[in-house]
Amino acid sequence: MERPGVIFVIHGPNLNLLGRREPALYGTATLEEIDESCRSWGRERGIDVRTFQSNHEGELVDLVQQGGDEASGIVLNGAAYSHTSVALRDAVAAVAVPVVEVHLTNTAARESFRHRSLLTAVAAGLVMGFGPRSYLLALEALR
Amino acid sequence: MERPGVIFVIHGPNLNLLGRREPALYGTATLEEIDESCRSWGRERGIDVRTFQSNHEGELVDLVQQGGDEASGIVLNGAAYSHTSVALRDAVAAVAVPVVEVHLTNTAARESFRHRSLLTAVAAGLVMGFGPRSYLLALEALR
Amino acid sequence: MERPGVIFVIHGPNLNLLGRREPALYGTATLEEIDESCRSWGRERGIDVRTFQSNHEGELVDLVQQGGDEASGIVLNGAAYSHTSVALRDAVAAVAVPVVEVHLTNTAARESFRHRSLLTAVAAGLVMGFGPRSYLLALEALR
Amino acid sequence: MERPGVIFVIHGPNLNLLGRREPALYGTATLEEIDESCRSWGRERGIDVRTFQSNHEGELVDLVQQGGDEASGIVLNGAAYSHTSVALRDAVAAVAVPVVEVHLTNTAARESFRHRSLLTAVAAGLVMGFGPRSYLLALEALR
Amino acid sequence: MERPGVIFVIHGPNLNLLGRREPALYGTATLEEIDESCRSWGRERGIDVRTFQSNHEGELVDLVQQGGDEASGIVLNGAAYSHTSVALRDAVAAVAVPVVEVHLTNTAARESFRHRSLLTAVAAGLVMGFGPRSYLLALEALR
Amino acid sequence: MERPGVIFVIHGPNLNLLGRREPALYGTATLEEIDESCRSWGRERGIDVRTFQSNHEGELVDLVQQGGDEASGIVLNGAAYSHTSVALRDAVAAVAVPVVEVHLTNTAARESFRHRSLLTAVAAGLVMGFGPRSYLLALEALR
Amino acid sequence: MERPGVIFVIHGPNLNLLGRREPALYGTATLEEIDESCRSWGRERGIDVRTFQSNHEGELVDLVQQGGDEASGIVLNGAAYSHTSVALRDAVAAVAVPVVEVHLTNTAARESFRHRSLLTAVAAGLVMGFGPRSYLLALEALR
Amino acid sequence: MERPGVIFVIHGPNLNLLGRREPALYGTATLEEIDESCRSWGRERGIDVRTFQSNHEGELVDLVQQGGDEASGIVLNGAAYSHTSVALRDAVAAVAVPVVEVHLTNTAARESFRHRSLLTAVAAGLVMGFGPRSYLLALEALR
Amino acid sequence: MERPGVIFVIHGPNLNLLGRREPALYGTATLEEIDESCRSWGRERGIDVRTFQSNHEGELVDLVQQGGDEASGIVLNGAAYSHTSVALRDAVAAVAVPVVEVHLTNTAARESFRHRSLLTAVAAGLVMGFGPRSYLLALEALR
Amino acid sequence: MERPGVIFVIHGPNLNLLGRREPALYGTATLEEIDESCRSWGRERGIDVRTFQSNHEGELVDLVQQGGDEASGIVLNGAAYSHTSVALRDAVAAVAVPVVEVHLTNTAARESFRHRSLLTAVAAGLVMGFGPRSYLLALEALR
Amino acid sequence: MERPGVIFVIHGPNLNLLGRREPALYGTATLEEIDESCRSWGRERGIDVRTFQSNHEGELVDLVQQGGDEASGIVLNGAAYSHTSVALRDAVAAVAVPVVEVHLTNTAARESFRHRSLLTAVAAGLVMGFGPRSYLLALEALR
Amino acid sequence: MERPGVIFVIHGPNLNLLGRREPALYGTATLEEIDESCRSWGRERGIDVRTFQSNHEGELVDLVQQGGDEASGIVLNGAAYSHTSVALRDAVAAVAVPVVEVHLTNTAARESFRHRSLLTAVAAGLVMGFGPRSYLLALEALR
Repeated sequence: MERPGVIFVIHGPNLNLLGRREPALYGTATLEEIDESCRSWGRERGIDVRTFQSNHEGELVDLVQQGGDEASGIVLNGAAYSHTSVALRDAVAAVAVPVVEVHLTNTAARESFRHRSLLTAVAAGLVMGFGPRSYLLALEALR
Repeated sequence: MERPGVIFVIHGPNLNLLGRREPALYGTATLEEIDESCRSWGRERGIDVRTFQSNHEGELVDLVQQGGDEASGIVLNGAAYSHTSVALRDAVAAVAVPVVEVHLTNTAARESFRHRSLLTAVAAGLVMGFGPRSYLLALEALR
Repeated sequence: MERPGVIFVIHGPNLNLLGRREPALYGTATLEEIDESCRSWGRERGIDVRTFQSNHEGELVDLVQQGGDEASGIVLNGAAYSHTSVALRDAVAAVAVPVVEVHLTNTAARESFRHRSLLTAVAAGLVMGFGPRSYLLALEALR
Repeated sequence: MERPGVIFVIHGPNLNLLGRREPALYGTATLEEIDESCRSWGRERGIDVRTFQSNHEGELVDLVQQGGDEASGIVLNGAAYSHTSVALRDAVAAVAVPVVEVHLTNTAARESFRHRSLLTAVAAGLVMGFGPRSYLLALEALR
Repeated sequence: MERPGVIFVIHGPNLNLLGRREPALYGTATLEEIDESCRSWGRERGIDVRTFQSNHEGELVDLVQQGGDEASGIVLNGAAYSHTSVALRDAVAAVAVPVVEVHLTNTAARESFRHRSLLTAVAAGLVMGFGPRSYLLALEALR
Repeated sequence: MERPGVIFVIHGPNLNLLGRREPALYGTATLEEIDESCRSWGRERGIDVRTFQSNHEGELVDLVQQGGDEASGIVLNGAAYSHTSVALRDAVAAVAVPVVEVHLTNTAARESFRHRSLLTAVAAGLVMGFGPRSYLLALEALR
Repeated sequence: MERPGVIFVIHGPNLNLLGRREPALYGTATLEEIDESCRSWGRERGIDVRTFQSNHEGELVDLVQQGGDEASGIVLNGAAYSHTSVALRDAVAAVAVPVVEVHLTNTAARESFRHRSLLTAVAAGLVMGFGPRSYLLALEALR
Repeated sequence: MERPGVIFVIHGPNLNLLGRREPALYGTATLEEIDESCRSWGRERGIDVRTFQSNHEGELVDLVQQGGDEASGIVLNGAAYSHTSVALRDAVAAVAVPVVEVHLTNTAARESFRHRSLLTAVAAGLVMGFGPRSYLLALEALR
Repeated sequence: MERPGVIFVIHGPNLNLLGRREPALYGTATLEEIDESCRSWGRERGIDVRTFQSNHEGELVDLVQQGGDEASGIVLNGAAYSHTSVALRDAVAAVAVPVVEVHLTNTAARESFRHRSLLTAVAAGLVMGFGPRSYLLALEALR
Repeated sequence: MERPGVIFVIHGPNLNLLGRREPALYGTATLEEIDESCRSWGRERGIDVRTFQSNHEGELVDLVQQGGDEASGIVLNGAAYSHTSVALRDAVAAVAVPVVEVHLTNTAARESFRHRSLLTAVAAGLVMGFGPRSYLLALEALR
Repeated sequence: MERPGVIFVIHGPNLNLLGRREPALYGTATLEEIDESCRSWGRERGIDVRTFQSNHEGELVDLVQQGGDEASGIVLNGAAYSHTSVALRDAVAAVAVPVVEVHLTNTAARESFRHRSLLTAVAAGLVMGFGPRSYLLALEALR
Repeated sequence: MERPGVIFVIHGPNLNLLGRREPALYGTATLEEIDESCRSWGRERGIDVRTFQSNHEGELVDLVQQGGDEASGIVLNGAAYSHTSVALRDAVAAVAVPVVEVHLTNTAARESFRHRSLLTAVAAGLVMGFGPRSYLLALEALR
């Protein structure tokens, strides 16, 4: 992936509420601010970072498939669907480009049903627990 | 919530079939009849009860988020998604208004995969087993 | 149950301490205040609401059996015995009148051994999480 | 179902990628080729076979409900949702027409989370492991 | 136990309702009729059969201890407490006389929480599934 | 079963070694002595008791099927196959005559893999723990 | 397998009782009728279909091994042994010809110990739930 | 607790049999001797040690509640109820005075259902395995 | 066992296929070659090594019992029945001569249902993973 | 142990940090202060109390073995190794002198992986939850 | 951590073999090369990166404690101890500086006993799956 | 391994106590006697057998790594670490020479936490239950 390319950053359900709710847990940065920092990271490196958010499992499957066709890498925060969606896992496994899983919080320190992510085993790698910086580290990992 | 306000009543998947199928289990009342009884309950008390139904997990997440912005309380029958959706749970946990969980039937008396609802722990309370009257009791609880 | 009748309200172990201890969890209302609000609800509707409390599993079994003979409905807060007592479950299943299960708190948000109530599957319905109002909603459900 | 009729063939998530990816696992036939072979099977027998695919759980619920109204039988490959969707199961249980579950691969020989299908218990029957021919056998079973 | 002696027959919770409720499951014989048939069995053989029933776990523990002092054998139908009471198990293990466990119904064919009896491992033996005759077979076994 | 009839007594694997090995656990009675006591019990009551033993699961299935055709009741000590054989369970469920399960020892007091018998749920009843007398009690129960 | 060949159809334990018992569950067709329909299917296609039944796990292992030597494919209804027999599984895995697993009923809708078949993971495919037609679909699948 | 005070010592079910039965396991000291040694310990230190025993779960709940009102500390040997009683746990959690859990034997070296005590998590501390001296150590710990 | 004696070598199901199938897993030695090497080992040491193979669980039980009567030691490769047969376990436990368990492959490195052998706990010892040499080491261990 | 002797007090991993970190959980006493209070307890009673700490599982095994040779009793706070170390358990079981297990905190009130101590079943007894005083009570118990 | 400081990089058991063994899984970089790349990263940023490796759990506990005193952050690859060591977890929880967990491989795609890391819940964050670059990303995250 | 070489024999924790303690379980041979018999076995065959013992997990990891460099085979009795040490397993998996696992006793007949050895799946083979002779059989297997 040395060549300039396109990277998809895909956010899962309820992440559109970032910054407005539960700041003690998720911090005060809004999703728009995170997206802008990702795009900014890309502009400095000549990479076209495109950001998406959906509360719909099916749309996230569509987006991962689309990223497999149009991007050279995907950063995916599956949020709640990480723990329940075999469909999203299958999409990640089906695409040929590397997918890096990201979480803002340390999911291992939260409820037990968040300890297992179905996505991890088919992802290229995982970055979690660093808040909004997790996305930049994941982008760095993809580079 | 003494002030006149808005309450969302949100129905989950397959509840659009109510009254037409499996009446032995779910009764003969249609969803429209249940919705009308909820709205009627609201009119008598000067509360604007708005009803919604969707078979899509993502739309239910959207609706709960919308209810968090536009209503002073939510009555939610997550139906099948109650048992599988971390995304819906996260939406319920994220909104600041109280969400009361409702089920028409006594789910503890049905298949074991219906015994656990992921929503209950983050709901304000639970009313279940009283058929269509469950909704009115939940509205009463929200008042 | 349109006819004037008798309803038993039965409280399980340690509920006699209500109001005096752990008010952060259980609120400041005493059991006597809850009982009085139940009886008051009955007086307004011409129903004779009789209230009982016991720390003894066997006495609760006796009371449910007695309610099956003398009342037209039972509101039962099994408290700790909800989670461990097959005997109480069998009593609820044996009586012909409807039994509505009640909990002051949202047990799904507490320790995991409180998540399962043996009573729910044989109860007519369940109301939980609304504090002392849970009892009035349960009475309303029985009406 | 001796009378000429309509059969729905419904494909779940990621099956739109068939033939293009992981051919070692899923074979080289595209979804369009499978759909055409199903329709061809129908034409030879005077049956109107209609095919659908969606990555969205809610749309699959909608399609099963629609098939319950418009078709005399449904062939359903729930793919990943077979293993996680109570909503889809409820839809299958709710419709009055027979639903035959199909899988291209032998799911029992894959990851353990694919061993259980929530759909099977409410389906009329199951055919799996024969690749694209699984669909034709399922159609034959419905006849 | 060839010598004329005393045998305790102890019935657990809700068995006082026998014959009056759920006759499809438990039959139409009342507890009094069962007790009389046990005493009659004893009279024919010169054995003093004494019968007891209680809904209270503690009283059943007391009765088993008393039987250990006053009887040469105990027939015990622990009913619901069979499945939950370590206290009753400890009492059975503590007494020196043989205790035969009895159940009217085949508990292995009922709910899974009735499949395990804590008493069995410390009982002398088990007779179950033959309705009221189970008691007579247990008495015969004790002889 | 008042009419004179035929009862099959069927012994499972390794019971042919009774009396010769592990007498501390299984007692000193040989299988032939047990069989003779069963036949003697029958002769006194005009019942033709026929006894069988096999170490082969398939032969035990055959014998239960044969008993269903030729006898009016079956006493079955499945021994080790009680804990593992769905085939034997299916045979017991398939025959129309009552099958009483018997064990010489108290299996609940032995290894945990002996605690569950697949046969119990489909047997008419269970007698266990009384040594060779268990057979006579089971015959008595069948009468 | 276009060439004329031999196919073994092997039935497991208790299937010899088909048609005579539990017709509500298994239908009224006898095993002989099913076998004849399989042979008839073969005659029409120039294939020699040979049918076998045994209640003995070891004989079924022998038959699968024999089929691996003499046939070009095997249709196997392992019945109860499907759920318990590693030996049968090993035989299926050892033979070079394809083995199609068949069940008359939908085992996923029955007792939980019937939900897992040890054979499925090593079979070529699975057809179940269509009654006697399941065999013909399996033969069709083998062709 | 430097001030002279009152300490309750509460014994659970079957401990009234101490010294008379199973001395190999529980020792030869009677409960009365243990109680006297506790009272003697108190007299030497100007503390009023009051001892109680009951086989009834409900009475133990009552006693813990009473101890919460009348004593400055409680030593509790819940015996069998330690492993099953949520009611007793709730009583221990509800009282404001420290409760020290005591066992005569090392429960971790006994049956697995004795390995978990529901009381421990809400007790001030635990002393077990030292026979009758466990009580004196617990009293010492309370001081 | 210094005295000249007899040793039984007993092979379980599907081992008759050794050398002909799955040589990558089981090697190219045939069962006859293994048997000959065992007999040869015996001839060199004046021991009569007798070899047996069966696909039938019941025959293996018979053979172990026979070995208990006629041999001074048994080498047993239970193959698939090692993982499922309580009957075979009971036979091993019942015989007075030492039984050494053998496996050609390292079963701990295969499917999880092969990780537990019911035979091991009652065997004198275990040798596994050395291919055909496992048998010779087991014979050596018996000597 | 009436005779003057030697007692080992052995502290496990991370206890060297006591007093400096997490005082809310572990208190402000340093390990040195605890050790001094133990030695002081010994000096008053003519017992030579020797204290050790190690973060190394192997050194703790060595120390327990050494205590078995040189001391008349051991007080052991295994800390984290209590929950994971079979090696330490085996050492405790191997030594002939009594070993009393100690914990500063109530481990039953902490994370679930701390609820089980592998050491308890082989220890002479257990004292936990009383902070630094737990050690003195354990020494008292050993005396 | 903007100020120039010290970072510990700690490698767990068997990582000293990196590059020499199993390069297909772990890559061809040696531990020395990884350490040099970490130190180089530090030199460029004025940070003193110190690297350590040990096969000993206790030494790793010592090193984490030492890092808590001497460094402003720790990068920890616990390797095998990640999955078993409560002691290491307690050390990570005890130190005041942030600890970032690192794995070279995607442990979620390996054996199930590697899926859970005891360290994650108490680490500041996690980076895994990117080979030697995982360390640099973790250092970046600490900055 | 026909060529003269070096074999490491490595003993795990507490095996240094052999012969002195628990001779009923482990026999009366000391570790030194076992080591001498192993070296003697080597001298007769021109193989240099080197023996080691450690109570430290990390030292055992070191020794296995060292054996991978200096020996042509390893005999490893991991003792308690067999059941808990992923680190030791990883070391066994990493070395290129064959490692044969040995146990003196039949671990399958002991506590359940000893039934699983993490080492077995990556060992070349396993010999257990023959006391000190287990080592010689393992050496023979390596030859």
